[in-house]
Amino acid sequence: MSRFETDTALRVRSDSTTYDVMLDPGWSIGERPNGGYLLAILARAALATTGKPSPLAVSAHYLRAPSSGPAEVRTELTRSGRRVSTARSTIWQGDQPYIDALVTAGELHQAPVEWDDKTEPVMPPPEECELAHNPHVHISLFEQIELRVDPSTAPFPAPNGDPSMRFWFRLADGSPPDLLSLLLAVDSGPPTVFHLSKFGWAPTVELTVLLRGLPAPGWVKVESKTSTVADSWFDETATAWDSTGRLVAQARQLALVGEG
Amino acid sequence: MSRFETDTALRVRSDSTTYDVMLDPGWSIGERPNGGYLLAILARAALATTGKPSPLAVSAHYLRAPSSGPAEVRTELTRSGRRVSTARSTIWQGDQPYIDALVTAGELHQAPVEWDDKTEPVMPPPEECELAHNPHVHISLFEQIELRVDPSTAPFPAPNGDPSMRFWFRLADGSPPDLLSLLLAVDSGPPTVFHLSKFGWAPTVELTVLLRGLPAPGWVKVESKTSTVADSWFDETATAWDSTGRLVAQARQLALVGEG
Repeated sequence: MSRFETDTALRVRSDSTTYDVMLDPGWSIGERPNGGYLLAILARAALATTGKPSPLAVSAHYLRAPSSGPAEVRTELTRSGRRVSTARSTIWQGDQPYIDALVTAGELHQAPVEWDDKTEPVMPPPEECELAHNPHVHISLFEQIELRVDPSTAPFPAPNGDPSMRFWFRLADGSPPDLLSLLLAVDSGPPTVFHLSKFGWAPTVELTVLLRGLPAPGWVKVESKTSTVADSWFDETATAWDSTGRLVAQARQLALVGEG
Repeated sequence: MSRFETDTALRVRSDSTTYDVMLDPGWSIGERPNGGYLLAILARAALATTGKPSPLAVSAHYLRAPSSGPAEVRTELTRSGRRVSTARSTIWQGDQPYIDALVTAGELHQAPVEWDDKTEPVMPPPEECELAHNPHVHISLFEQIELRVDPSTAPFPAPNGDPSMRFWFRLADGSPPDLLSLLLAVDSGPPTVFHLSKFGWAPTVELTVLLRGLPAPGWVKVESKTSTVADSWFDETATAWDSTGRLVAQARQLALVGEG
């Protein structure tokens, strides 16, 4: 088992819809577990409840920031179909829900892409990219993943104020990517609004990820960009391609501009 | 009251979290109520439950296709905050949930845009665009809205196979757009995969909309495009700008390619 699998593992209770999980401090930014790590746990519970192998669409609303340590995932099957099933999946600590998600699951196959818009960005190979780090905050997440940033999109802020980033992603223990670790990949980069000098903790309120293909082994390429900053809010769209150049995940989030 | 407000109106029950609604047949494609119309009802119920004026992020998973007629919306407040609140909102008919949504709400202000990526498309004015129609299916929705399609993105299929569309949207009774009718606007166009000759009913399984600004009176401009078609699934991203050119909504959905 990879470290990622171990740290997102669930133990089902006798009601068969509630799961115990240990939120591991190894996937955090400062004291806060990464949103993509939490998304993977929510999706894993939904897969167990629906009995389907592949998450297709995962929509999470972040209510409160959980702490590392024990938590439970409560699930509710809302549709059980031949092709797709849907569940609600919620992380609880104590008597409060922390992240609430809806997950539609089915089965992705090794099917060829029928059409794509060919927007995969060109970027230097991983060995010519820079390992992400942050001098201000301890990011234990960066010990579990290797995130190599295209030097033309780093460091912050971008001189031209373009809030976009490109980076390579892989698990540090060398495990190949799967659908659940793609949920981590698309939320693993720093907020692109840092390029606009809007630094500080930028809490995500909503994050939806569409999973579009089973990733091939190797590095995952991610491009993230902000389209609009207004009224204290920004969006961030992150797209992931596998090592064969296939689009495998599409994410978008709404987050609050940091104040600090 | 506009026809849209009348047809999305809710009557709250004594438990103050359940709402009765009449799904009006005037907002349908064939026999099926439009997904954006349903989204507006889900969001309206969430606003009532949270006590906030503006939906910010609405994520819906479509479980079953409801029929026109009476339905109920059950809501559950999951976070009540000063700045944002979140609720689950679900449309039921009989003893089954039909559409399940999570809604984060707050308050959008008439604040200037701080940064935007200037991707608003240029297109001919509404009077030089073509009124959308469909010779194969009765679309009562097109009697409630005026949808004028940029002739360079119509008719289907596009000779160059580009699955994108641009259109103008407004309510047929002349009511100005608001945040709830933007939820309708972003899901009112035909599936862009029709440009790839993939015709037929293309059921949405998931649709998330971010609301980014209070729309000014006048026409709403919408651009929709598909990025990838693979393994029977396609995504569709729809972006809406108001009459002043401000980005006001960002939507993305996952849908099944039609087989018709």
